[in-house]
Amino acid sequence: MLEDKSQNLTPIAKLGEFGLIKHLTQHFQIIQDSTKISVGDDAAVIDPGNKKVVISTDMLAEGVHFNLGYVPLKHLGYKAVVVNLSDIAAMNAVPTQILVSVAVSNRFPVEALEEIYSGIALACDRYKVDLIGGDTTSSNAGLVLSITAIGLADEDKTTKRNGAKPNDLLVVTGDLGGAYMGLQILEREHSVYLANPNMQPEMEGYDYILERQLKPEARTDIRKTLEELDILPSSMIDVSDGLASEILHLSDQSGVGFHLYEEKVPMDSVTISTADELNLNPAMAALNGGEDYELLFTISPNDFDKIRNHPDFTIIGHATENKDNFLIARGSNQLIPLTAQGWDAFLNKE
Amino acid sequence: MLEDKSQNLTPIAKLGEFGLIKHLTQHFQIIQDSTKISVGDDAAVIDPGNKKVVISTDMLAEGVHFNLGYVPLKHLGYKAVVVNLSDIAAMNAVPTQILVSVAVSNRFPVEALEEIYSGIALACDRYKVDLIGGDTTSSNAGLVLSITAIGLADEDKTTKRNGAKPNDLLVVTGDLGGAYMGLQILEREHSVYLANPNMQPEMEGYDYILERQLKPEARTDIRKTLEELDILPSSMIDVSDGLASEILHLSDQSGVGFHLYEEKVPMDSVTISTADELNLNPAMAALNGGEDYELLFTISPNDFDKIRNHPDFTIIGHATENKDNFLIARGSNQLIPLTAQGWDAFLNKE
Repeated sequence: MLEDKSQNLTPIAKLGEFGLIKHLTQHFQIIQDSTKISVGDDAAVIDPGNKKVVISTDMLAEGVHFNLGYVPLKHLGYKAVVVNLSDIAAMNAVPTQILVSVAVSNRFPVEALEEIYSGIALACDRYKVDLIGGDTTSSNAGLVLSITAIGLADEDKTTKRNGAKPNDLLVVTGDLGGAYMGLQILEREHSVYLANPNMQPEMEGYDYILERQLKPEARTDIRKTLEELDILPSSMIDVSDGLASEILHLSDQSGVGFHLYEEKVPMDSVTISTADELNLNPAMAALNGGEDYELLFTISPNDFDKIRNHPDFTIIGHATENKDNFLIARGSNQLIPLTAQGWDAFLNKE
Repeated sequence: MLEDKSQNLTPIAKLGEFGLIKHLTQHFQIIQDSTKISVGDDAAVIDPGNKKVVISTDMLAEGVHFNLGYVPLKHLGYKAVVVNLSDIAAMNAVPTQILVSVAVSNRFPVEALEEIYSGIALACDRYKVDLIGGDTTSSNAGLVLSITAIGLADEDKTTKRNGAKPNDLLVVTGDLGGAYMGLQILEREHSVYLANPNMQPEMEGYDYILERQLKPEARTDIRKTLEELDILPSSMIDVSDGLASEILHLSDQSGVGFHLYEEKVPMDSVTISTADELNLNPAMAALNGGEDYELLFTISPNDFDKIRNHPDFTIIGHATENKDNFLIARGSNQLIPLTAQGWDAFLNKE
């Protein structure tokens, strides 16, 4: 499907660089008022009004962040946008624009890039962001996607990583560990397929965790929910590398420690049952798995009543004076030092 | 030098992803007032004041845009920034911030990345821009650099590609063709070196064109010069792919044609003498070579007196009603149709 084996597929060189960009971006609509100049000039122009501009960039490399053996190109495009919008959401900003650069070898036909861009278009539509620029180039080897996301925010509403105070409550959205367990199923079934291409993959019952891995969503809804609850987090970060790693970032930058209660960490039942099936510790998936793209934040203990029992949020711990960070193990008061074993592109190569 | 052959070099995995980013960015200073949050949070925050935000991104891939056989890593870092600032300059904006993402294989030691970042730091210092974010990842193959540049501008001062009117004068800064001729010398000497590593490269006398290729500068000075002359170009673009290709972009987007006078195209004497030496047509180097990063723009004929004899500018042609584009050949009135044979990453692979 991916490589250009068929005579019916279009080699990229046929369109050339400018023709390709035009071809891939022609159906994207501009919907944000702040977008003044989009694709097609030397640069895009944004009118932020009286807002501050929030900007983040992420790079995804084939064989490191994704395996084209089991990641459909459309999902790849969608997810590449989502992981960037998640960073904007973690600043308490509204995502408004993206720029997309793709390096791709000539073994990919134009149709493969169309698939990636159809996923990007779906994400743009879902999150109401404009594609305003980018670059397309050939590469001598794998596929590399680089996305820059832009958002707008009131300066006094942006949530940094450095504002947590002792006794602040540690809160997370949604549930954790699902994306990691989804990846385990994808890798298991891919190995089975490689061993015997006639075997049907066994994906039934895993829908939730597969979607968490292949088509995650950014919690851009949380900004509004917090605003309605009249809560401004004292610090915030998105869970991309794993809960433990993110807690250590908040700890490091805020100069506080954290106690995390293992039994409070929210997990879906499919995450737990799949972990059991694969003989893995579900808590480890939540702590170190990463790619959940939920938001982790701290709030003043005075805001406790506003957030308790809210379906979007779970209080999982609190900040401490001492900079040491501990996991309180399930069913005991045992303090286990919290260490980051999160995902690292330079260590965990597939 | 590049690959990790020595025991004294540091493998990237030793630092890990976060350690690496910290290590590479720790010495960068923030100098722009508009930079509110820089490297180290989920996203950077910019306060544009009452300005519009101009944003552009470019991706450079090893073996396509650069050959590490003869491009020093420090120069690569510098040039990667400059080509992006050139796009901001082409919008008549002041560059203020950059984000840098690098995908690099584990064959590169940390010291190689330090070299790239030392070039990036030099460009940041030279152009007074802040490094405010980015990403670093491993890749299964070559080196890929993706840079996003941000600038600030007054909306009524931005120069698009679509404003040229019939009879407008076509003006270019500096001189053209040098970067291309520099590349020819680098490739010649690299071939000689590959054939016989004991041969000394013959670079003497080629300094100007080698610098044009290896360490180009962005014409961020031109905005101020034009402002002092009270000239607002009706359209503007930077010369990255070659003069012919850029003229066709202005023509296409403005709906006018152009007549270009070959004998007016400014070229340095080293560009011309090197072209003679290599039996190449110097005009072709200017028209199709690209990478000169000069600015090409159109102005009202009423501004003629303001710009004539100015050392930064050369009037090389004019816009016409008819959308056809012609080169007026040197020493004749012969009209030759202008076609783009500019640099295309999908066609001109090394």
